[in-house]
Amino acid sequence: MLARYALAAGAALCLSVMPLLADPLPSWRDTEAKARIVAFVESVTDPASDQYVTPPDRIAVFDNDGTLWAEKPFYFQLLYAIDRVREKAEADPSILNSDALKAAANGDVEGLLAHGKEGLLEVLAVSHSGVSVDAFQADVRDWLESTRHPTTGMAYNEMLYQPMLELLAYLRDEDFSTWIVSGGGVHFIRAFAAEAYGIPPHQVVGSVGPADYEANGAPAILKEPGIFFINDKAGKPLAIDSRIGKRPIFAAGNSDGDFQMLEWTTAGDGPRFGMIVHHTDGAREFAYDRESPVGKLVRGLDEGPDRGWLIVDMAEDWGRVWPVSP
Amino acid sequence: MLARYALAAGAALCLSVMPLLADPLPSWRDTEAKARIVAFVESVTDPASDQYVTPPDRIAVFDNDGTLWAEKPFYFQLLYAIDRVREKAEADPSILNSDALKAAANGDVEGLLAHGKEGLLEVLAVSHSGVSVDAFQADVRDWLESTRHPTTGMAYNEMLYQPMLELLAYLRDEDFSTWIVSGGGVHFIRAFAAEAYGIPPHQVVGSVGPADYEANGAPAILKEPGIFFINDKAGKPLAIDSRIGKRPIFAAGNSDGDFQMLEWTTAGDGPRFGMIVHHTDGAREFAYDRESPVGKLVRGLDEGPDRGWLIVDMAEDWGRVWPVSP
Repeated sequence: MLARYALAAGAALCLSVMPLLADPLPSWRDTEAKARIVAFVESVTDPASDQYVTPPDRIAVFDNDGTLWAEKPFYFQLLYAIDRVREKAEADPSILNSDALKAAANGDVEGLLAHGKEGLLEVLAVSHSGVSVDAFQADVRDWLESTRHPTTGMAYNEMLYQPMLELLAYLRDEDFSTWIVSGGGVHFIRAFAAEAYGIPPHQVVGSVGPADYEANGAPAILKEPGIFFINDKAGKPLAIDSRIGKRPIFAAGNSDGDFQMLEWTTAGDGPRFGMIVHHTDGAREFAYDRESPVGKLVRGLDEGPDRGWLIVDMAEDWGRVWPVSP
Repeated sequence: MLARYALAAGAALCLSVMPLLADPLPSWRDTEAKARIVAFVESVTDPASDQYVTPPDRIAVFDNDGTLWAEKPFYFQLLYAIDRVREKAEADPSILNSDALKAAANGDVEGLLAHGKEGLLEVLAVSHSGVSVDAFQADVRDWLESTRHPTTGMAYNEMLYQPMLELLAYLRDEDFSTWIVSGGGVHFIRAFAAEAYGIPPHQVVGSVGPADYEANGAPAILKEPGIFFINDKAGKPLAIDSRIGKRPIFAAGNSDGDFQMLEWTTAGDGPRFGMIVHHTDGAREFAYDRESPVGKLVRGLDEGPDRGWLIVDMAEDWGRVWPVSP
């Protein structure tokens, strides 16, 4: 009987200790990057530590494009918009009333980008407005299900970074709230964020277009042309203030559009963590930084290390990239 | 021994059943209003009910002025702004460079309101800008601690409605998330919402002023003059969409500024609850509706009952008004 009790106690001990010993970040190699992340999380969650942070203040913010999922050859939302312009033009060619829209319908992204912000607004007006939020998000989900990435052949919502999914789950397990703070459109990201990342709609902060409340008949929120707020660069700390109302203690990004978010996060008192995902892995993903039209990263590389930010080397620090092998 | 076991079992039964029997809304009289609220909450939280709603969708939105705390003689945020204009003018009379600002400094609210939106923007510019968010919120808390209401003599943040505090707590106990969706300024409300209502900053949706991210020295969010978004009338469903990203199932307001929020909420599929706090209690609080410059309520009274909205009669339905007797 004594032996049986001892066995039972041992089994109970195993069950209670095992979750602590399990690796929360199995797709991260055992490099300094992983060690720094784990050391930070352990210090702010240890009530005996002078770095302890209470759960309501454990706010972690993440850029989306290039940080949680891929962004090459161009932001996936832009590829969606171009697909929809082309489809609408097939039904009604007269909508192609500008060179920017013609470039978009031809899939000529560089040609479209040459028209600058005005060209993008024309594409957004055709692809992202005149529709209810519900219908728009259903359409985004249809597109994600039916379209494949031009070079990897993967579904876009399979091109999530497995190490970052593990990081999100690890932080939530440690009573962090995890937020997306992205330059992408808030309605676009919400269409897949809950399923892809486990992040509910109210924790997605993005760029915002004008909208109209239509009360005739069944009330609806209608997306209108234009841009109301661009959630990029200095817009990110402003949106964090306006939407979250507290300064995060953890911020992750990959481009100079995230610089101010990391600066704002890490300039606060107490323990702080800033992290930049550096796209160094041309074999498994894409290699780009200073010269790239998307995800351009200059200042973060030059100033980040002196600011104590972790520069994640995808090729070195990540054991795998995608959740499912392509 | 048997009797002792039976007693112990009885005690355990009492302990486990008591929370269910305790009245979650003790300051609500036993009228139809209370019965309707409780019936709704019980039906959407009962997994066996065909009205069952999962916790992530149990979203409840509340107007603030006149719904969670008082708003007479004028919105308390306006009284704060006027106090600050007067104090700043005592230090530097040259700031009173308009009739609207002079009226404000003289405490002549009607005179100020006669100048319309432009006058209010001038008062906001003097009282709500040129300061960091942190400093502004500290100042609001100072004001709440040091100022008393002109007729009740109570602190403004004692003029909360006890029945509504109980309703907030009841809903949260039943796994609702509770949100403020107010025409008041988001930074102003957040200065006291966590302590007063148990509502964290990210669940306060309000009107928003322009802000600037200042990175020189210690990074700060600076409040700028003007208005970026007015969270009133049709702005409320738009802000709910933009900020929460889901349609609430419960909405409470008190004025026609809340009409669209209740309309949007109650037009959704499945069980919905719309509630209007009707200020009928001139003895304990204030009696006003159709003719009042603040909290004007016409359409809600005329159309609300046919839409199935509960019209709460403060004098009849509430056993007490304030958390602490004045």
